[in-house]
Amino acid sequence: MQFPSPVAIQWFADFLGAELIGDKNGLATGINEIHKVEKGDLVFVDHPKYYDTCLQSAATFIIINKAVEVPAGKALLVVDQPFEAYLKIVRHFRPFEPATKPVSDTATIGAGTYLYPNVFVGHHVTIGSNCVIHPNVTIMDHCVIGNNVIIQAGTVIGSDAFYYNTKKDREVWYRKMESCGRVVIEDDVEIGAGCTIDRGVSHDTRIGKGTKMDNMIHIGHDTVTGKNCLFAAQVGIAGAVEIGNGVILWGQVGVSKTLTIGDNAIVLAQSGVPASLEGGKAYFGYPAEDALLKKKELVWIKRIPELWKKVMG
Amino acid sequence: MQFPSPVAIQWFADFLGAELIGDKNGLATGINEIHKVEKGDLVFVDHPKYYDTCLQSAATFIIINKAVEVPAGKALLVVDQPFEAYLKIVRHFRPFEPATKPVSDTATIGAGTYLYPNVFVGHHVTIGSNCVIHPNVTIMDHCVIGNNVIIQAGTVIGSDAFYYNTKKDREVWYRKMESCGRVVIEDDVEIGAGCTIDRGVSHDTRIGKGTKMDNMIHIGHDTVTGKNCLFAAQVGIAGAVEIGNGVILWGQVGVSKTLTIGDNAIVLAQSGVPASLEGGKAYFGYPAEDALLKKKELVWIKRIPELWKKVMG
Amino acid sequence: MQFPSPVAIQWFADFLGAELIGDKNGLATGINEIHKVEKGDLVFVDHPKYYDTCLQSAATFIIINKAVEVPAGKALLVVDQPFEAYLKIVRHFRPFEPATKPVSDTATIGAGTYLYPNVFVGHHVTIGSNCVIHPNVTIMDHCVIGNNVIIQAGTVIGSDAFYYNTKKDREVWYRKMESCGRVVIEDDVEIGAGCTIDRGVSHDTRIGKGTKMDNMIHIGHDTVTGKNCLFAAQVGIAGAVEIGNGVILWGQVGVSKTLTIGDNAIVLAQSGVPASLEGGKAYFGYPAEDALLKKKELVWIKRIPELWKKVMG
Repeated sequence: MQFPSPVAIQWFADFLGAELIGDKNGLATGINEIHKVEKGDLVFVDHPKYYDTCLQSAATFIIINKAVEVPAGKALLVVDQPFEAYLKIVRHFRPFEPATKPVSDTATIGAGTYLYPNVFVGHHVTIGSNCVIHPNVTIMDHCVIGNNVIIQAGTVIGSDAFYYNTKKDREVWYRKMESCGRVVIEDDVEIGAGCTIDRGVSHDTRIGKGTKMDNMIHIGHDTVTGKNCLFAAQVGIAGAVEIGNGVILWGQVGVSKTLTIGDNAIVLAQSGVPASLEGGKAYFGYPAEDALLKKKELVWIKRIPELWKKVMG
Repeated sequence: MQFPSPVAIQWFADFLGAELIGDKNGLATGINEIHKVEKGDLVFVDHPKYYDTCLQSAATFIIINKAVEVPAGKALLVVDQPFEAYLKIVRHFRPFEPATKPVSDTATIGAGTYLYPNVFVGHHVTIGSNCVIHPNVTIMDHCVIGNNVIIQAGTVIGSDAFYYNTKKDREVWYRKMESCGRVVIEDDVEIGAGCTIDRGVSHDTRIGKGTKMDNMIHIGHDTVTGKNCLFAAQVGIAGAVEIGNGVILWGQVGVSKTLTIGDNAIVLAQSGVPASLEGGKAYFGYPAEDALLKKKELVWIKRIPELWKKVMG
Repeated sequence: MQFPSPVAIQWFADFLGAELIGDKNGLATGINEIHKVEKGDLVFVDHPKYYDTCLQSAATFIIINKAVEVPAGKALLVVDQPFEAYLKIVRHFRPFEPATKPVSDTATIGAGTYLYPNVFVGHHVTIGSNCVIHPNVTIMDHCVIGNNVIIQAGTVIGSDAFYYNTKKDREVWYRKMESCGRVVIEDDVEIGAGCTIDRGVSHDTRIGKGTKMDNMIHIGHDTVTGKNCLFAAQVGIAGAVEIGNGVILWGQVGVSKTLTIGDNAIVLAQSGVPASLEGGKAYFGYPAEDALLKKKELVWIKRIPELWKKVMG
């Protein structure tokens, strides 16, 4: 999330009751989680295992639970509970705004766009021109929809990230990382019925121009797809995945988190993708591998009895 | 799609600005895509690879981008952009009708049928008697629901086909084949929550009498199921599939497009069906094969280490 | 289902026109299907194959289609059609109550709970305090939601069980076992968008305290999950499953019916669980087995060609 305008880091120290160590005159431009940080950002870390990753990341300001050495040009905000500090900042800049009607007055809707009955459009949503939004669609706050977009019935745009702070020494193990990111749907995208697209935790989930999605597709937080992709029904893509242009995922494919799929890759139906895939090739099976080789494995399995007979008599 | 009444082919030539070659006095009764054409239909073709298939199909009138030889008793409508001509005809006979209320006044709803709040029922929908339609269900224009049908919450009937005209030499590769078909749900069908059933591209998607579907099932365009089928949760069936009577698909089964499954076939959970299956047998795995044989493969895989030890020492 | 207060078994005999055999003075406290019966319950059985199971079950009153020997302290209600008798009782104690508005006046909603627009809340629903119910959510009659619960858009709580009485000698093979159970969501549970949670046939489906569910998850009737579970997107769990505390199911996992998964088990993505799993271990594949062993099988498959070459020359 970017702040509306840069904010003095001293203001955050006061707001959080934090000890400010390092350059005290900086301006923070946003807050992001570690996978998405940029220069000028705040980030938080509460486990020594991740101290280094955060201190060495692009982030300029680190909310941390120990006064460690400050890298040059950065500053620390030392607090007891960095995760609570993160939530406090997110809630300040993205306060909960109750909806007073199904389509918010703060939404901007372009010319020639048609909303069917029973649609929900949250606050600060932007929808471009010549879109069709089918019945019972939900578009949550701050999402951005381009031009010529079709969203079919029952689909949800901007559900919260499935992303939790985990500690097993308390009664409730998982605490929600409240999402302050958005979903951005580019022009000429078409989304089928019953899909769910999560907003980024702190950044954007983005569906590239001209991409077409069938029904019941799940897209996780912070995932970015390229242009002209084609996803068949019941595909599931986890969080923070980067998908190139022209990628085709056939029905019921599952894609694990924080990986990359190259341009024009094709993944055949029901395959599982646990690791990054190069572009320009067809993949199959679990783990998804070169489709021809993987299909040959199915043939090899059928030859085991013959082999057994030969060897074992 | 059948036209309300037969239309002179000369009218289409004028409407499209097409050159009419062959029998100029014919009457067109409908328009369909190539998988579903019948005598009297218009069909379109824009790639030489498919010219023959279309010219030799049941269709009487071929919208085509080249003046080829006309088969006896047929006529050609020659235009530069056959796909655009198809869209123009579909939009003329199925013009977009904005919904003015959640349940259209043009819908017909039978005696004893109960609609929960937050249901959407589009124009020209027919719902039979003694049905229960749960909250947040969407039934799009022109769909037909029989008697004694239950549709549970959040389900979408009549979403558009996932069917595109593809050309990779333009900025947006995929252009929607606008659907003018319907979904027809026969008597005594029950559909779970969160399902999506796509309408036919130009024909009907049909769910046979007495079929019961669990939650989150996807049925593609133009798919036809028989009577008394049972589909468990999260099954996905692609487009133009023909499923017999009494077929059972267990949870998360995926069925590929344009294939046939025979009467009383059973497909075990999570299997993938890439090719047609004979009736009366149980199937398992990917590709779905005789369940007993396929389960034996799992046992054979476990014997490889023993074989290895014997052979490799 | 428990009755509001105990009911004389003689009343049921009169209500059903049944022959009452055995102790005629008993009081029935509820009615349940065979997987969930308790002392004081009615149960029904219509196939000789299951007579013994029902007669020996915890149920005190057996609705049956034959006058068999009565176990000590029990009674039989003999009728021609036990299934019809079951339906008659369920409909008497859980009569269909049409909804007159999107949020029923008979629902109880706690302090600090926020309902977005387009939510449906049925009769006799209880929602605790500090919950957030997103747009287009459906909560059907009699369900119970705890405190601090988040339910994201389009999710359905309390859809009917997918549970049928099957007879293939009639025109419609499957007849719905009408559900009279509930869904109970405990405190601090979070449920993603587009999920469906079926009510119990006659008992409760229950999601344990602190459990977090991603999008598009299906939970079958009478399934009970422990505390602090984590279910990733597109997981499907069939009916009457018992899941322990701290269980993690990754994306697209499928779990078959009436089995048990022990505390802190982890099932990796896309795995299928056809049989019970011990707690404290990681599982993978179909059938889900020890993850390390199962992943080794993938390596062994790749060695078949080498083995073949060695053996076959």
